[in-house]
Amino acid sequence: MPSIWILGGDGYLGWPTAMHFSNRGYQVTVIDNYFRRSSCKSLDLGMLYSVPNLVDRAKIWYEKTGYEIKVVITDLSDPIEFRKLFDGEMKSHWFLSDPCINTPETIIHYAEQPSAPYSVLDHKHADTTLINNLRVTHNLVWLVKEFSPDIHIIKLGTMGEYGTPNIDIEEGWLNISHNGRSDKFLYPRQANSIYHTSKIMDTDLMWYAVRIWGLKVTDLMQGPVYGIETDETILDNRLRTIFNYDEIFGTVLNRFIVQAVCNHPLTIYGSGNQARGYINIRDTLQCVHASELNPAKTSELRIFNQITEVFKVNQLVNMVKKVGKSRGYKVSIENIKNPRNESEEHYYNPSYQGLKDIGVSPNILTEDVLHKFFEIVEEHKKDIRKDVIFKGIKW
Amino acid sequence: MPSIWILGGDGYLGWPTAMHFSNRGYQVTVIDNYFRRSSCKSLDLGMLYSVPNLVDRAKIWYEKTGYEIKVVITDLSDPIEFRKLFDGEMKSHWFLSDPCINTPETIIHYAEQPSAPYSVLDHKHADTTLINNLRVTHNLVWLVKEFSPDIHIIKLGTMGEYGTPNIDIEEGWLNISHNGRSDKFLYPRQANSIYHTSKIMDTDLMWYAVRIWGLKVTDLMQGPVYGIETDETILDNRLRTIFNYDEIFGTVLNRFIVQAVCNHPLTIYGSGNQARGYINIRDTLQCVHASELNPAKTSELRIFNQITEVFKVNQLVNMVKKVGKSRGYKVSIENIKNPRNESEEHYYNPSYQGLKDIGVSPNILTEDVLHKFFEIVEEHKKDIRKDVIFKGIKW
Repeated sequence: MPSIWILGGDGYLGWPTAMHFSNRGYQVTVIDNYFRRSSCKSLDLGMLYSVPNLVDRAKIWYEKTGYEIKVVITDLSDPIEFRKLFDGEMKSHWFLSDPCINTPETIIHYAEQPSAPYSVLDHKHADTTLINNLRVTHNLVWLVKEFSPDIHIIKLGTMGEYGTPNIDIEEGWLNISHNGRSDKFLYPRQANSIYHTSKIMDTDLMWYAVRIWGLKVTDLMQGPVYGIETDETILDNRLRTIFNYDEIFGTVLNRFIVQAVCNHPLTIYGSGNQARGYINIRDTLQCVHASELNPAKTSELRIFNQITEVFKVNQLVNMVKKVGKSRGYKVSIENIKNPRNESEEHYYNPSYQGLKDIGVSPNILTEDVLHKFFEIVEEHKKDIRKDVIFKGIKW
Repeated sequence: MPSIWILGGDGYLGWPTAMHFSNRGYQVTVIDNYFRRSSCKSLDLGMLYSVPNLVDRAKIWYEKTGYEIKVVITDLSDPIEFRKLFDGEMKSHWFLSDPCINTPETIIHYAEQPSAPYSVLDHKHADTTLINNLRVTHNLVWLVKEFSPDIHIIKLGTMGEYGTPNIDIEEGWLNISHNGRSDKFLYPRQANSIYHTSKIMDTDLMWYAVRIWGLKVTDLMQGPVYGIETDETILDNRLRTIFNYDEIFGTVLNRFIVQAVCNHPLTIYGSGNQARGYINIRDTLQCVHASELNPAKTSELRIFNQITEVFKVNQLVNMVKKVGKSRGYKVSIENIKNPRNESEEHYYNPSYQGLKDIGVSPNILTEDVLHKFFEIVEEHKKDIRKDVIFKGIKW
């Protein structure tokens, strides 16, 4: 079976992705520097429950399934460390019989500081975001070019790269006519945080690597993800993914569910008319897997918009409120001054057909899905720290 | 008189810019880390003549004019070092009576690794380019936001950000209509080196800082610069600017003149049909000064295309050949395989009206200008190192 590296394999998406591929027989190696865990500690952000470290996760996974996931703890923003993965110097921190890390057919790149609020906390956190994200991506394209240009890179981008333009959002590209001539360009990008800007830059870097060096890249413009469970996390509670509900690492729907369960008002930033594309964590795995099965071609930067439904924040709130009430919660709502510098009334019409065309079948956000989500959060109700839900970060 | 900081004030453009403003009574501080000098040493790239260090340059300038230019040698890619300039901790390495560095009205930002070939030498040099350029610009916008958001930032970009699109190149912005709706965006950018890509990213960063924080920025998309002399460098030979003629730091016309003078064939990359916009170093100073006198507004990212004429490489070669022959040189031509990954036959129609509209009066490339240029290079004919002219760097 093919070999896959998952950069950022300890994260909210990384670990479920690792189990997803391993469960289907792929040889999986996860690489991480525990950035999320150390940031949660230093910023005092509680997780909903604690999770074992990556080596222990791999051991539990092996106990449950008989599959091996290799584990490397290192900092991929360091060009010299990252190079060791390719030249055979780096060994797995846990393995069954062979500690060597083989060059993969596919690299899934989640190894980035993923939070917009983190990126605008202050100069230092912005610097960390910019340098970490750019350097990991830059190291990746150089090393793939040098060691194995046939590797398919699947990179998580963000719908936030596009911002909220006044024209339809296409999937990555736009044909432009001007003064009687025309050309095709990357769709215009302008983002509202240093984090999102770093992802625009990643796309610029990969477009360079594809055009000039002939690499194969799929860039997935993902919307905010929600959910906890996947087919693999349910095998054992200790295999659950990291789950944050604070305003730095928590995504919006995940936060609303936790707020409802602990009787904290649902915090709407501004009017709540901001529209975005959302996706269930199960569909992230589906999308990444479909991309792996249908790789980009040599010299192709293939871009998909990885969302399954568009909602305004107020629509999400109303759904959570309805389901929460039916479960006996009060569910109040608080419109707070928007800390983000974003349009609250705007046009939003993104395309998202490409992933369906290669076989993705979306999991829609139904009341059943929300009920199930509430159930899991309720298991940990007593552990919710209300003080981390909202600290009032200014952008 | 207003105070100005010149980041990268030791470079080919930085030092002449410093003298230009100082000569007109501005309080000038130059900041540099000697990157160009140390790179020339480590890569064994000869300069046409040696120049005094920055403190000595400032002393000579004072002897000749009575004007003080303050000097700081530090690495602006380091957030902590850069901060010291703003919080008063950093003192001038040379001064008349007061070592303090005052917060300026204008910051002119040249402090970047400026060479495309350098940026693609290998992974390490690409990393240096990306991290240096992004970090200096990022530090700059954070510190200006924090300490003095009214400062006008004048940043050198490059025409190379646009690449060679099949549509007319506008000055930074493009109105796009799509499916019956329209919006205005940064003009699409796609570049052919890591260096040029880092400048695209700089523009993204500054557009963020302008939109979200309300900074004032002028981004100058400059074409390849040629020339040695300015009104200030002629006051004393020791005040001349750094002049490179190697394939890493030398710009194309500067290289052709040196090649002609030392009987090296003029090296044309590929067909020589590549069109670019060019500018005389005297006009760089004019453009920057006009931008300083007519600053960008709060929340404005003002973009000018800083070129004065468009030539194909073959046109430049023919001009140099004609003038060279009239001065008694043989002037042969060698079409070498293009080491750059660039289109050799392409549409190229850039606008460049904005700087003229604020008063810039271009110095056109005439035979007289070329004769004068030959004369200066001839003074150093015996010092030209033929071995550094062409080493065959692959992109």
